[in-house]
Formats: sequence, C-alpha cells, structure tokens
Amino acid sequence: MTIMDDQLPEKTPFVKEIPRKADDLSEWYQAVCYKAELVSLSPVRGCVVLRPYGYGLWERLQSELDARFKATGHENAYFPLLIPESLLMREAEHVEGFAPEVAWVTQGGNEKLAERLAIRPTSEVIIGTMYAEWVQSYRDLPILINQWANVMRWEKRTRPFLRTLEFLWQEGHTAHETQAEAAAEVAQMLEVYKEVAEDIVGVPVYKGEKSVSERFAGADHTYSIEALMPDGKALQAGTSHELGQNFARAYDITFAGRDQTQQHAWTTSWGMSWRMLGALIMVHGDDQGLRIPPKMAPVEVVIVPIARGDSTVASDFAKVLHAQLRPQFRVKLDDRDLRPGNKYADWDLRGVPLRIVIGERDLAEGKVTVVRRDFPPKTAGREVAVAIGDVAATLRELLVDIQANLYAQARTFLHDHTFAPATREEFVAKAKGRAGMLDIPWCDRAECEAAIKEQTSATTRNLRTPALGPVCLACGEPARVQAYVAQSY
Amino acid sequence: MTIMDDQLPEKTPFVKEIPRKADDLSEWYQAVCYKAELVSLSPVRGCVVLRPYGYGLWERLQSELDARFKATGHENAYFPLLIPESLLMREAEHVEGFAPEVAWVTQGGNEKLAERLAIRPTSEVIIGTMYAEWVQSYRDLPILINQWANVMRWEKRTRPFLRTLEFLWQEGHTAHETQAEAAAEVAQMLEVYKEVAEDIVGVPVYKGEKSVSERFAGADHTYSIEALMPDGKALQAGTSHELGQNFARAYDITFAGRDQTQQHAWTTSWGMSWRMLGALIMVHGDDQGLRIPPKMAPVEVVIVPIARGDSTVASDFAKVLHAQLRPQFRVKLDDRDLRPGNKYADWDLRGVPLRIVIGERDLAEGKVTVVRRDFPPKTAGREVAVAIGDVAATLRELLVDIQANLYAQARTFLHDHTFAPATREEFVAKAKGRAGMLDIPWCDRAECEAAIKEQTSATTRNLRTPALGPVCLACGEPARVQAYVAQSY
Repeated sequence: MTIMDDQLPEKTPFVKEIPRKADDLSEWYQAVCYKAELVSLSPVRGCVVLRPYGYGLWERLQSELDARFKATGHENAYFPLLIPESLLMREAEHVEGFAPEVAWVTQGGNEKLAERLAIRPTSEVIIGTMYAEWVQSYRDLPILINQWANVMRWEKRTRPFLRTLEFLWQEGHTAHETQAEAAAEVAQMLEVYKEVAEDIVGVPVYKGEKSVSERFAGADHTYSIEALMPDGKALQAGTSHELGQNFARAYDITFAGRDQTQQHAWTTSWGMSWRMLGALIMVHGDDQGLRIPPKMAPVEVVIVPIARGDSTVASDFAKVLHAQLRPQFRVKLDDRDLRPGNKYADWDLRGVPLRIVIGERDLAEGKVTVVRRDFPPKTAGREVAVAIGDVAATLRELLVDIQANLYAQARTFLHDHTFAPATREEFVAKAKGRAGMLDIPWCDRAECEAAIKEQTSATTRNLRTPALGPVCLACGEPARVQAYVAQSY
Repeated sequence: MTIMDDQLPEKTPFVKEIPRKADDLSEWYQAVCYKAELVSLSPVRGCVVLRPYGYGLWERLQSELDARFKATGHENAYFPLLIPESLLMREAEHVEGFAPEVAWVTQGGNEKLAERLAIRPTSEVIIGTMYAEWVQSYRDLPILINQWANVMRWEKRTRPFLRTLEFLWQEGHTAHETQAEAAAEVAQMLEVYKEVAEDIVGVPVYKGEKSVSERFAGADHTYSIEALMPDGKALQAGTSHELGQNFARAYDITFAGRDQTQQHAWTTSWGMSWRMLGALIMVHGDDQGLRIPPKMAPVEVVIVPIARGDSTVASDFAKVLHAQLRPQFRVKLDDRDLRPGNKYADWDLRGVPLRIVIGERDLAEGKVTVVRRDFPPKTAGREVAVAIGDVAATLRELLVDIQANLYAQARTFLHDHTFAPATREEFVAKAKGRAGMLDIPWCDRAECEAAIKEQTSATTRNLRTPALGPVCLACGEPARVQAYVAQSY
C-alpha cells in the first residue's frame, strides 16, 4: 500500500498488516490510522471521516482543553460558518494569507448569490465583526471566547489528522483594553497548550515565537509549540497570536477608554486542532499499533476472559469485575466470540494501556493477569499477577506509571534528537538529514531563512531569546535570537 | 422594533425594554433573545451568532442528550461537511426534499470545481456511503453512531433558534440487520427526546407518527415530538426516522446475512437541534425575560451582596458562600459595581432560577434571602429568609421545586389548550384561531390534509392509533388514526 501525499484515494485501503514503524513512518502511520479505525477516507477529496475510536480521542482532548479554557475565564460561543467576501477582504495581510485556500459558496438553493461566501478558514473576520458590535466601553472588555468548530482550507497535499481540507479545532478569540493584557493572554494560552501536550498527550514540546515569515497572516506576533516526530520532522501542534490592533482597525473594534478617548481594542487568537492526535499516534505508536497515554485513552482498561470449554466461570467473573471497575475507570469488557490472541492483537493495535486477562486457573488462586501496553512484548514486568482485591489499586498505579513512561520515552527522544551544531557544515548536514531539532544562534532575517530552506528544506520552528552565541550559525551575521530549526510537517 | 420574519436585519436591534409577552409573542421572543444575550444577528443573511449565554444553554442540552446516547450504546463520530452532487442525487425522494435548500460550493481556492459540493443539509448521504464501506457481514451490525454538527438549509424565512440557514444539531444514524431492530431503535430515540424535552427542558410534548406529507424525505416512517407554544402554534422539537432499506439500496449498504444471502441493511436517523432552546424560551419566559428550568440553567444560583456604605461585610461573606457552594451548584457571584436593582433585573432577564441576596442586617441575624425566579413579583413565597447553615439544602430543594413547577405550568397550559372538537365547524374555527392542539379522529389522506391546510393554515402534527371516533372530523371519511392538528412553526 503506497499512498501519495498529494492525492488520497477515495476508498480507505484495506490494511492486512502494519509495516514496521522504523521502515517507513508514513506508511506505518496511515496503516495504523485505518486499521485501528481512527479514520476512513471519504468520497470528498481531501476530507476524512473521524470514526468513533478516533472521535473518542478527540473527545478526551476536547474535554481537557475545555476545562482549562473555562478555568481561565473563557466561555464558548458559536459563529457563522460562512463569511461574505467583502468582509474577508478588509484585513489585507489576512486575505493574502488565506484567500488562496478558501472554498467559496456561490449558490444557495436555486438562487445565484450576489456575493460569494467563504467557508471559514479561521474566524477572526466574523468574530471581529461581532466584537465591534458588542464592545462600546472599556467596561465591556475583556471578551474571552472560545469556539469549537469545523474549518476548511483548500490544500493540495493531505494526510489524516495532519492536513485535510476540513478539520475540527478550537479557536479562541479575545479582545482586551491594553497591549499588555493581550500579550499576557497569548502567553497564558500557549502555556495551556504546552501543559495539555505534555501532561495529557504525553508529547514534549518547545515553546517559542515564530519568525516573521512563519507568522499567522495578520498577526504582530505568533507563538507556537513544536513537537518532534520519529522521522526527525517537527510538527506545529498549537499556536497563539497577538493580533495587535490590526483586526480591530480593519473591523472597527473600538471602545471609549478610561480616559474617555476612543481606542482600538487589542485582540488575540489561539488554536489547537485534531492535528495533535497525529502527534500522539506518531510519537507513541510502535510496531503493534497505537500506544495511547492513559489520560487520552477512550478505553483505559480492557477485560478479556479466557473461556475453558463450556465453563462460564471466567466470563461470569469478568462481568462482575467490569461492573466493579466501571465507576472508576474507562473500562471495556471484550466478550466477543473470538480467540484470545486475536483480541490481544486488536487491543494492542488500538493502544489500550492495560489489559486484564482472566483465566480459570488464575482465578482459583485468587488472582488475574494485568498486561501493560507500553512495554514491548516479552519484556520483564509487562505482565503482572494481581490479587483480586488489589486490582483497582494496581490499575491506578499502573496508569500513572504508563502515562509517565510514555512521556519520558518521548522526552528522551526529543532530548537525544536536539542538537546544537558546532559548525555551518554540521548544521546543513543535520538539517538535510532530518536529524531533529537544531538549536542555533540565528540572525532573525527572512533572507537567511529562505536560504536555509532552499538548501536544506528546513525552516525555523520557533525562536527565543537570548541568542546563545554571537553569530548566526547559518549565515555568519550577528545573532539576535536562538532558533529551533527543522524540516516540518 | 419590528422584525419581519423573512428578512432578519444584519445588525442586532438595540432592545430598550421587553414588550409584554401576551401582547406580541414574536416581538417579545426576539427582544428576549437579543437582550438576554442569547444570540446576535450577523452580517451573514439568515445566520445568527450563539453568544456565550445561549451557548451555555446548548451545552446543557448537549450534555443531557450525549449522556443518554452513550447510555443506549451510541458513539460519536464526525463526517465531512461537503457532499458531492452526484452522491446527493442517488436517493430520489431525498434529493427532491433537500435540493431546493442546499448551499453549493463551486470553487476551491483558485480552482473551479469539476463537480459542485453541497454543504450538508443532513448527513444520510455521506454517512450511508461510509456505512456501505464498513459493513460486510451481519457481525458488523448494528452500527450506532451520533454526530454533533452544523448543517445548512437555504431557507427564506428565518428566526433565531427556530429557523436559520445554519444551525447546530445532533444527528443519529444507525444501521441494523432487521426491520424490527431498526423500528425499536427509532422508538427508543424518540423516547429519549421526550424524556429530555419533559424532564430536562420542562417542555411537555406529544409523541406520534408524522403523516405522509410531513414525513422526512426518503423515510418510510417519521416520528416526532411536538410541543405547544403560548400563541397556540405547535413546534416540532425532535424527529426519529425509519429509513427502511431506501438509503441502503441507494448507497449499497449490504451485508452477508446469517443465512449467507446478501441483504440490504435497515437504517434510521434521528435529530434534535438548538430549536429546542426556542421552545424553552417561549414556553417558560415571562414579562421579565427568561425563566430557565434549573437542569438547563448555565447558572443555577446567583449571589448578590448589598454593600452598605464602605463596609465589606456583605461582599466578604458573599465570597465565602460562593466558594462553599461552587462544588455543588452552578453558582455565580455578582460583584459588579452596579445598583442591586439593576442586578436583579439583569438576572431576572437571564432567567437564573435562584438569587441569594446578602444584606448586613440579615447577616447579623444569621440569615440570607433567597428569591425564586419562577414565581411572579410580589407573590407569597417568592422570597424566603434562610438560616446560613441551611442555604445549600434549601437551594437543592428549591431547584427541584422550580424544575417541577415550570414543567407543571407548561403541562397545564398544554392540557388546557388541547381540544377534542365536537363538530367540523368547531374544528375549523379553533384551527384558524390557533386555539392549540386539536385532537381529532382523522382519515389519514393527503387530500384531506391539504384541504385542512388550505382552509385553516393548520396541518397534522402527529398521529397515533386507534382513532377515537368512527369518522374523520375534517372530511367525514372513515377515520383511521387519531391526529393532533395545529398551525405550526
């Protein structure tokens, strides 16, 4: 099975076996996405179906993000899908950035529309227009709103989760009285993203500011979190933008200030999409399939009873145990009429963190077997015999341990694949070879970045200060910042 | 302020005062929607913005429905927004029903599309196409999936919540091995809708089957729940469809049966939208604004401290009480710098079920005042003094009582406005005069329904058996069913 990047087929390919992850990450990734029933391809070019198990992952991510948005004072709302063309055209940089990838509605029922309507590629425009109506005085600020929505960008190259024409995301949009408040909001939400990526999804990230050429169209400053995939390419997993007064000027978000003067509001936006799930799959998966960190797992524990002839002892006990564990865990009982080996392979593929195997002989001795998914097959400690009375406590401990272990493995990988090249030659070789994150003193000039990209296909992922050396490792000009450089998705 | 039904303005009108509900329900309704900040109008024709307080209502409804969907074995998933025209055209009745109200995407980026793409008006087509791919054998059935999504129907007349071009809803789509299983599913989900409408939203409904002419395009049977609004018009609040094998035939959902023959699956779909919130507003609201049943209230209890000069005694206590109540209730502390009367009016407008007023004199006597929103101003029992130690227990009791009281009031209204007319003349007069739900023996003939509609603007809302009289009250032909007839939204 070979899938070209730029043209997904309409029918989901049948996956007989998952290739080895180390052999071809791209083939492995798509095989896992289909075989674990996370997504299906659809007859709509470049759009995928998020199947129930994939949606279960999305619901976990949603719930963790939503709780943090609410805890930081944000409320959810919903704005129209369609944006009139004339409205979209008001913020010049924004238009230039998004117009080439907009899908246009030109007909409604039998009526040809007088004005084309864009399907939102993002909602700054329509939300800014509404904020202009809602804000009169500094007393109406801040406005702290998040939207859960589908958006559409007419991309050429598509790949499940990482890049599709339509995708699910959340977009926060806030308006503030001062630049300082807006900057604090942007920093706060970037930190929320980092926390969710690391503590929940188990994917370590680097925080920093985007270079001018990688900035969101219409923003003064864009910040991102960047993760590293096993093939040495970076993945941007969340962004947070200081929009300055650009959108407030274009869409008339003005207010009477404390000093009675009319002022433009300072706005921000920030988003994370189902792309984060792509990172989860690539970072944690292995040759057997997914490995899902417990906090993200739609199913934390699966119970598999082993029937012995016609005896129902194991399956009866499995039902009792299932009922007992349900209030405390996301637990599933697999009572399908299948061979145990097939069930194990199925749940390993789906990355369920813990499996409880119930056999009659074990039961007679008052115990069950608990198997952890994060350890490779035949590793010591992968299977443990647990006394029946200790099952719940053991599960709790193991889930904490698996969450920590998956994160630790990913952090070690990131650490081992972050380099501070000593010379320009080493930098170029590592950038071309997808060695990982290259941490270099950088001049912060677009010309230099273009030259790096031309020569190596890599770009700056994000920047921080101060620079850790006097001169740019790429061009020799004075260094102004420290940059992570990598090829990227 | 007068809003025409067929052309909402682009700017949300400023509402100074809410008109009396009894004077003009339509003006009252829109004034409440805007002034309570549930919705704003938008620059996109016929599309509204669901503001945070309105979205809070939607989140309550979502969470109650979603829990019941999951408890009945359903899982969530997400399917593409766009549907290729050729795919939409396969089920003849479905196309005829929906094609006139579809919005079409004809351009993606700079590329003119070879085939038009419809924005989903509902998702039977795209979901049926995927089920055809997923189902091979009877072992793959049933498929029980729900989708939370935005959909679009290019309507002429629009009104917040009740009818807009874009709206939020959930749509369940299931596939079964037998007709009997599909029928049981449809009945089960209709009952879930009735339970949520009555027990959560506090809106009593009549369950029944739709007549042939009111049926969903492509269904064999459509069932609905119908509520009655204060102006005597009915509102369809949820529908559940037996799609027979129609979509399975059109989209090739076939499976190898237990007897090894290839068979078409039996499919269903069922949906409830934010329209339910329109029913909540109209049924429970009064001249002061919204009255929200506690189970639907984004804020169940608001705490208002009354400052006395510079003393912070009341506001300090309010903070302590707020912290105490938060783990048990959706509670808000209103510490804005506003006069108490303005705060009361504001929370009355927003329909918060309970208000706790904290005054220093009360505090000195060890008590606070609790005011219930469901009783009209100056009614005995509206305000009660509660000892500080009893606050939580009293709130709990009052919330239960308010939920029951609002439902009882609505049920009494429905009961008092359901008539079994004795003669054709009485039936016609009551139908024309929007008296309410007219419960008549009916012939179940499309010609008769068309004649009723022509003469009275009313239609059958839903049907049940047996007929409670021998002949149709409208036309004198033999009665086959008992029908609720009313004008409707």
